[in-house]
Amino acid sequence: MTLDVVEVTKIVDQHFPQAREDVGAFVIEALPELGARVRLPIREAFIRPGGSVSGPTMFKLADLSVYIAILAERGEGAVQAVTSNMTINFLARPQPTDLLCNVHLLRLGRRLAVAEVSLYSEGQPEMVCHATSTYAMPPT
Amino acid sequence: MTLDVVEVTKIVDQHFPQAREDVGAFVIEALPELGARVRLPIREAFIRPGGSVSGPTMFKLADLSVYIAILAERGEGAVQAVTSNMTINFLARPQPTDLLCNVHLLRLGRRLAVAEVSLYSEGQPEMVCHATSTYAMPPT
Amino acid sequence: MTLDVVEVTKIVDQHFPQAREDVGAFVIEALPELGARVRLPIREAFIRPGGSVSGPTMFKLADLSVYIAILAERGEGAVQAVTSNMTINFLARPQPTDLLCNVHLLRLGRRLAVAEVSLYSEGQPEMVCHATSTYAMPPT
Amino acid sequence: MTLDVVEVTKIVDQHFPQAREDVGAFVIEALPELGARVRLPIREAFIRPGGSVSGPTMFKLADLSVYIAILAERGEGAVQAVTSNMTINFLARPQPTDLLCNVHLLRLGRRLAVAEVSLYSEGQPEMVCHATSTYAMPPT
Repeated sequence: MTLDVVEVTKIVDQHFPQAREDVGAFVIEALPELGARVRLPIREAFIRPGGSVSGPTMFKLADLSVYIAILAERGEGAVQAVTSNMTINFLARPQPTDLLCNVHLLRLGRRLAVAEVSLYSEGQPEMVCHATSTYAMPPT
Repeated sequence: MTLDVVEVTKIVDQHFPQAREDVGAFVIEALPELGARVRLPIREAFIRPGGSVSGPTMFKLADLSVYIAILAERGEGAVQAVTSNMTINFLARPQPTDLLCNVHLLRLGRRLAVAEVSLYSEGQPEMVCHATSTYAMPPT
Repeated sequence: MTLDVVEVTKIVDQHFPQAREDVGAFVIEALPELGARVRLPIREAFIRPGGSVSGPTMFKLADLSVYIAILAERGEGAVQAVTSNMTINFLARPQPTDLLCNVHLLRLGRRLAVAEVSLYSEGQPEMVCHATSTYAMPPT
Repeated sequence: MTLDVVEVTKIVDQHFPQAREDVGAFVIEALPELGARVRLPIREAFIRPGGSVSGPTMFKLADLSVYIAILAERGEGAVQAVTSNMTINFLARPQPTDLLCNVHLLRLGRRLAVAEVSLYSEGQPEMVCHATSTYAMPPT
């Protein structure tokens, strides 16, 4: 890990300020080796009829969290990394509670980063969503 | 095709009213056999620094458009269909113009529907985004 | 877990005898809760110029191992389960050694099973291949 | 298109001779702009009980056909291109007849190529398999 929670949060807020509006008031909870744990406090607008959380909300959180894990490892030089691919599986109906997102970078290469992502509803044991994602790294 | 553009639009607006807020002011332009063509008029909030359109905006449009194609074929009985999987490839930087989305249902089974989706920026020849998606159909 | 290693091996060999020819002399090493660990002893035919193992060999091992994990949980009644989707990421060049495959069933529903798969070359720390896969379960 | 059918066939046979054994006696039928059409004559070993064709056979044909399309466009310099990702959807039971594979390169960049693939059983109208695939291009 190159950067800590405060540094990564600052870079995201500076280079990607719309994330606060788009994704919500995310909180980076931890930056383990080659990974990230990010919490998304629930917000009225995310909730679907029946109390579930929308698919795009989960997509956005997964995508942002992978970006956070890449920044933590590679530093500000990786700010131009862009998503090239995401495969997302919706597994269980989320609860109207905070979403907890765990990222693990399976590969962090010079040109590509591949990550695995698991999402949980706080207080619910089963995984609600799983994703794998590829980012194209900026040329150095 | 079972339903026409007016009927499908009405079902979406009735059962999924948040789509107008979430996805935007989508317009169903055509419902070809086993498919759909949907336009998303550009909106300030979708635009990223540099003039691009956000990934989640494309994800949401792709997902909604597959749902529209399923409804058109299967009618209101399919309103409980849910996304189980989406694989999305971001191919080219979209322009800050309307997004045009084409859906083709590759398989429309009793239990699963599989769709292919291509997205274009209006006035730009190359595809900006491609997706394949699986919906779990409601038990009959 | 419903069945043990001996029982699952017997079912695969009985209903899917071509696996021994196609995939190779696989060995089920363990059947943890909602999962499986399967070893594929290396065979001359799998090896590519340069000493790597072919992509299709990894695809076949991943696919068979998910099937094994489903059988272990659901028993012989699941023998008609079929792969509906697989997303596979090739991460690192495998070594010309045995392949070790770990499956974790993320969701085992009445209609769909979703699994995550990681593959390693024996004696190599980094993951060589990652997959997520959906099986359609046979109607009960 | 840079190379023709004879030239591409020669390059594959020279650099990837095991394809004839592994995938089968493939025939490049056409190399349209940014694409390829490849036929795989059916072979006893591909056939599953019930007369279907195995999933790995379709995976291998899809993967090889994308490689062929890339070679046709980029020439022998692309021979080191490697599959980084494939998402494959199995749609319908194939018949025990030749497989016909159509590739369309959605993007052919300097670093990544993204392709869409559709497979048919000869004489059967519905698509049996659909895939999207990413190749990492060799550094120039």
